[in-house]
Amino acid sequence: VSDANNPRFARVAVDLLGGDHAPEAVVDGCLLATEEDHDIGVTLVGPVATAEQLLADRGRSGALAVVAADQVVEMHEDPARAIRAKRNATVRVAARLVRDRAADALVSVGSTGATLAACIFTLGRLPGVTRSPLAVVIPATNGPVVLLDAGATVEADADLLAQFALAGAAYARVRLGLERPRVGLLSVGSESGKGDPTRKLAYDGLVAALDGLPAEFVGNVEGHDVPLGGRADVVVTDGFVGNVLLKGIEGTLGMVWKAIRGADDAASELRSAFAAATAELTPEQTGGAVLLGINGVAVIGHGTSSPRAVASCVQLAAQSVRDRLVPHVAADLAELVARRRTAAGFPNDVGAGVST
Amino acid sequence: VSDANNPRFARVAVDLLGGDHAPEAVVDGCLLATEEDHDIGVTLVGPVATAEQLLADRGRSGALAVVAADQVVEMHEDPARAIRAKRNATVRVAARLVRDRAADALVSVGSTGATLAACIFTLGRLPGVTRSPLAVVIPATNGPVVLLDAGATVEADADLLAQFALAGAAYARVRLGLERPRVGLLSVGSESGKGDPTRKLAYDGLVAALDGLPAEFVGNVEGHDVPLGGRADVVVTDGFVGNVLLKGIEGTLGMVWKAIRGADDAASELRSAFAAATAELTPEQTGGAVLLGINGVAVIGHGTSSPRAVASCVQLAAQSVRDRLVPHVAADLAELVARRRTAAGFPNDVGAGVST
Repeated sequence: VSDANNPRFARVAVDLLGGDHAPEAVVDGCLLATEEDHDIGVTLVGPVATAEQLLADRGRSGALAVVAADQVVEMHEDPARAIRAKRNATVRVAARLVRDRAADALVSVGSTGATLAACIFTLGRLPGVTRSPLAVVIPATNGPVVLLDAGATVEADADLLAQFALAGAAYARVRLGLERPRVGLLSVGSESGKGDPTRKLAYDGLVAALDGLPAEFVGNVEGHDVPLGGRADVVVTDGFVGNVLLKGIEGTLGMVWKAIRGADDAASELRSAFAAATAELTPEQTGGAVLLGINGVAVIGHGTSSPRAVASCVQLAAQSVRDRLVPHVAADLAELVARRRTAAGFPNDVGAGVST
Repeated sequence: VSDANNPRFARVAVDLLGGDHAPEAVVDGCLLATEEDHDIGVTLVGPVATAEQLLADRGRSGALAVVAADQVVEMHEDPARAIRAKRNATVRVAARLVRDRAADALVSVGSTGATLAACIFTLGRLPGVTRSPLAVVIPATNGPVVLLDAGATVEADADLLAQFALAGAAYARVRLGLERPRVGLLSVGSESGKGDPTRKLAYDGLVAALDGLPAEFVGNVEGHDVPLGGRADVVVTDGFVGNVLLKGIEGTLGMVWKAIRGADDAASELRSAFAAATAELTPEQTGGAVLLGINGVAVIGHGTSSPRAVASCVQLAAQSVRDRLVPHVAADLAELVARRRTAAGFPNDVGAGVST
């Protein structure tokens, strides 16, 4: 398979050492992803001897490319500081491959903080972006819901929530194929006055940010609107609340699994219905989250990812490359930058490199 | 049944006009609660003619006491301002009955904000309490979890989270019968450095607040630890995050219900197992949340409460009276007040009425 003549071909750099079950689950997941989709080429980024041994053990020597990297950001380290210090950290090398056009996307199921830091440090943010949100797609009952930020930035002011809204709307258009996604602000009640001071400010900020763009602000939504869907296609919140909610949804599905596990096998149809409805949401199966607002495609998966979950992350990264996600998000954010500049009395053509 | 000679007897004042299905669901729920437990006496608080007509329609004239109140706090009103202005608001009259010892507890399935305002205005806070958290019990897989604040206060600093921890631990001892409940701080990772600045400060604050008390601080917990349980008996967070998480859990159960509803009837055993495991969590069934830190027992239920849910709220209120919840919580909070006074250089015996 040649990438030069195949517009669908996507080259994905994968952090070999990230995740609780690395490196085995990473190698197995990458093999699975490329077997299922021949238009994906994976480059494992990690210790070469380890990668080659694992491929050989599986009788797949040479099936995946390997690029050397031998440093890891430990859980106890400050991610930003560690990424600066460790030039050969696996995620930093993976980001470098994307920056240098040797890969189209990167995937890690390791530390979110380290991957985020590597992306910002090496790839940089898109114009208009001050923080990069993680976006996940929840397979909600009444249609998929993009939830962001799922945990990249633990604090967000009203301005940042407006950025997230634009990035999320752009993502929903690309990923879900919606012409005019409905955007909701996560709060504690659906009335416009509900919420903390940040949400009250953000309410007007989202109205202004989305005005005239192909998106509709539907006002406040609540915690149940994320798993149930139907009220909004995009739900905007800060990374603290988004992370707690996402893990709460995952944990609730785990609770249900445990409750029904002991039931009779006659119930297999019901169990299958439940499995089909929730498979993408269980920690072992989840397809990962896309980091938006970065000048490149980056997918971050659960630390607990199984090979199936790693494969889903790789496929999500490839799809995002094919969908030209980054230029789409960049265009919407450039619009926000231009408006702010106009509102601040600057002409519209100062250039795109100013972040607010 | 006479209350004077029966130490189990609990008199509960119930807001007749609160909730989406009021007043019918309230009357039906109160009748159900008193039929199931003859040691509960309910006083309906609302328009007398309405209450009497509803009781007569059910052939139960005189079965419940009625106290007149004819004002309601509308959803669009500022609750604190409305409660001050409306002397005859149903929740304010109910709180007055508790203050005047004409009732032992109050229940409302109406506006949380209005009930909270009425309790603070009429009953007052316990010493050491600056904000009153709502506590719910989640029937988690590995044992029940007290989650607080479930939505009373949308912002909380580290000091307030320490208050919530003490109130929650006291509640867990009383309600769950635990000698030494494990208390966790809800954050985005289990390591001690994880979270926003408030959580980082609160971490040390909880260590200090719980030191020497019959409770154990287990550090940070995550969103999934609430539905799954096992790591902490009490999970502490602000009312914004707690409300979003609680509704997210409820919504996820709703999502599962919808996914399995269409399955074959052969699956009834599985459906029953699921129902048993999650019944207390569905919005229609939930037993309500207890408002802690108030000088009286107050239970707030979902606006969507069915008669069954209203009955559960009334029974939870009665049980809290029998458990002497308020003196138990007050004792732990008094300990915190005493420590702060000592830390601030004041003698320990200044009196208990100072809030910090």
